[in-house]
Amino acid sequence: MNPADLTLYLVTDSDLCPPEKVPGVVEKAIRGGVTLVQLREKTASSREFYQRALAVKAVTQAYHVPLIINDRLDIALAVDADGLHIGQEDLPASVARRILGPDKLLGVSVSTVEEAMAAAQDGADHLGVGALFPTDTKEVDHLVDALAIRQIRQQSGLPLVGIGGIKASNMDVLRGSLADGVAVVSAIMCSHDPEAAARELGEAYRKAGVTDEI
Amino acid sequence: MNPADLTLYLVTDSDLCPPEKVPGVVEKAIRGGVTLVQLREKTASSREFYQRALAVKAVTQAYHVPLIINDRLDIALAVDADGLHIGQEDLPASVARRILGPDKLLGVSVSTVEEAMAAAQDGADHLGVGALFPTDTKEVDHLVDALAIRQIRQQSGLPLVGIGGIKASNMDVLRGSLADGVAVVSAIMCSHDPEAAARELGEAYRKAGVTDEI
Repeated sequence: MNPADLTLYLVTDSDLCPPEKVPGVVEKAIRGGVTLVQLREKTASSREFYQRALAVKAVTQAYHVPLIINDRLDIALAVDADGLHIGQEDLPASVARRILGPDKLLGVSVSTVEEAMAAAQDGADHLGVGALFPTDTKEVDHLVDALAIRQIRQQSGLPLVGIGGIKASNMDVLRGSLADGVAVVSAIMCSHDPEAAARELGEAYRKAGVTDEI
Repeated sequence: MNPADLTLYLVTDSDLCPPEKVPGVVEKAIRGGVTLVQLREKTASSREFYQRALAVKAVTQAYHVPLIINDRLDIALAVDADGLHIGQEDLPASVARRILGPDKLLGVSVSTVEEAMAAAQDGADHLGVGALFPTDTKEVDHLVDALAIRQIRQQSGLPLVGIGGIKASNMDVLRGSLADGVAVVSAIMCSHDPEAAARELGEAYRKAGVTDEI
């Protein structure tokens, strides 16, 4: 698969938004400029996750935006998603890559250069690097800054997004990071106007000076 | 794959027994006569489930007893288990069969003839039918008796085990059920002597008169 456009990467969260509303939020967010969608379900049964993934895929497919499933390789296979995103508590990346085959996107969450190098070795296509800020949506045990992201980007050679508590108003945290994009959860999922929120985030990202020198 | 020997089917439970002790309990239970092992993890991370499955597979493989993974098709694929067991809240059986391929065992939990017929249609190899008694290890919303199991066995044509609160002392609940075996969780997982418990359960099953007329 061609590298994904990571510019504005939406991670869904059914705790922030009722599951039945997620496809509609995703559609509005895509209209506002979201380039990649990761479906994350932490408490759903496998059947619920499968059904929600089918519903979101109907949207992403219509807009030709890749859909990536968080953690659950079986759900990714079951709905023929475009890829999988895994963290350090999920299946090993090498195992996921072997089962996914070469044609699906594989993203890995990392917070250190060591984790990034291991992910690159194991077949990751791109990285989610964080957390930039403490968040309510995920337990954070390691904070990163722009310099740390820059080092991970340069040493791993993998495209990456910064993640963790990023909003339009604090986007300059990515200045000089060389990040290929920004991943957001609550800034879109909690918004009353996800399309406008996505548009504002995209503009803030473009103005953040990610390629500046540090 | 050849039909599995369902006679004495152990379902593990890490809530009843610390995860690090599960492989040892499984080994003792196999020595006592367990013919099939289903690994069930309800709260483990994907990485933990994967690692526990590898540890249990080392035991089951050494004893040539099939290992089946509960719910998580990705874990079954990741450890190359002998099969998958799914319930009505898990992936649809037809989807699981498509991804598993024809050579892996697929078991499905059912409690009615309708569910059993659908599972047969969708590619199930065998059924778990219950619950026979209310249990602490799983929410029970439908109780079955020997006659119900007999009807499911006859109408679906699929081999099956009775499950749900069965102990050596109440095994005669299966009299006349035509069950091909019995599945147990706590009767082995909570036992201080899993080998003796398995042996006692196997003897009770053989004496229960499952092929008697009702």
